[in-house]
Amino acid sequence: MFSLEKGYFITFEGIDGCGKSTQANNLVRSLKNKGYETVFTREPGATVIGKEVRKLALSNQFDPCLECEVLLFQADRAEHVSKVIRPNLEEGKIVVCDRYFDSTLAYQRYGRNVNVDFLVQAHDFSTRSLYPDLTFLFDLDLEVAFERIGDRRDRMENEDLEFFERVRQGFLEIAKAYPQRVKVIDGSKNIEEIFREVCLSTYDCLS
Amino acid sequence: MFSLEKGYFITFEGIDGCGKSTQANNLVRSLKNKGYETVFTREPGATVIGKEVRKLALSNQFDPCLECEVLLFQADRAEHVSKVIRPNLEEGKIVVCDRYFDSTLAYQRYGRNVNVDFLVQAHDFSTRSLYPDLTFLFDLDLEVAFERIGDRRDRMENEDLEFFERVRQGFLEIAKAYPQRVKVIDGSKNIEEIFREVCLSTYDCLS
Repeated sequence: MFSLEKGYFITFEGIDGCGKSTQANNLVRSLKNKGYETVFTREPGATVIGKEVRKLALSNQFDPCLECEVLLFQADRAEHVSKVIRPNLEEGKIVVCDRYFDSTLAYQRYGRNVNVDFLVQAHDFSTRSLYPDLTFLFDLDLEVAFERIGDRRDRMENEDLEFFERVRQGFLEIAKAYPQRVKVIDGSKNIEEIFREVCLSTYDCLS
Repeated sequence: MFSLEKGYFITFEGIDGCGKSTQANNLVRSLKNKGYETVFTREPGATVIGKEVRKLALSNQFDPCLECEVLLFQADRAEHVSKVIRPNLEEGKIVVCDRYFDSTLAYQRYGRNVNVDFLVQAHDFSTRSLYPDLTFLFDLDLEVAFERIGDRRDRMENEDLEFFERVRQGFLEIAKAYPQRVKVIDGSKNIEEIFREVCLSTYDCLS
């Protein structure tokens, strides 16, 4: 196994059902096979406190106001970066994370119309300004994504089609704004084809 | 019973053991006796979500990083203002709250050295800029306060004497900065004397 000088931070983004989690796990396996020290993690809910916060923010049992929802996700991220992401990066590992800052922008700025300045201020506070080195954004038609996730929906997934259309377009806006960092993946392609694309971009960036 | 045109928001602040909670409850009883529609509440933990957040932030079982602690308290406040404080104020009621924004500044800015600009931005976001009309700050010698609270200490109360000295001085700085809003109460006086002082100021402001 070998590690990088300053670690490398890769995020997978997109609406639920877009296929990002499968591909993130496959990439982690490939990286480990090639000898890279690699950690897989996800948001929200990767830490002890995060698991509780995730329940409060997403379970249908609770119904936080918008501001509370925003701050709970930020609290989860603060703990996640401080206890998991940053320590692993500092040990020179590759950290692969399912959802991160772009989900905040897509769901809360574009989906819920939260002020973008505060979202950036809160992210900079909660993470001490940690941004990914590389991001894969999986874009997929909403009908296909909904069919894939089926009936098991949390509070966020119970939102209406218009909300998810705004989120999807939001992700694409972010990709346009950060073309160096964000690679858009066509989520309708088959698994093998997407995996080749993800590996190609990743190893290109690492070399 | 009668209600005010736009409600009235009173907060009680100070370190634990300073006597503020007793006096807040006594004031609520007095206001109700005089016919004012009055609600007593407290931070953190006044809502369903807040009770869970309070555990995460304060129980000795969890150990959030500093940024997570700050954001958890803000999430609690967002829910509290949205579900309890603002609806009651909008109905013209007096809301008496045990701890609010000044505790954030005293414990997190002065006690833990968190950037004050972010604390104000987060407060403005979480509360849509709701500040108290009147604040009672109870000042008391730390040794006396510690003796009063005894052994039942949460994560915050387990901090050392220097931390609480910074918090105490922080509260006094705030009182100096907002002399119109904040009345400093000498917590070493006897209960009846303090109660007279609190009532005098409150009814003076309400009339």
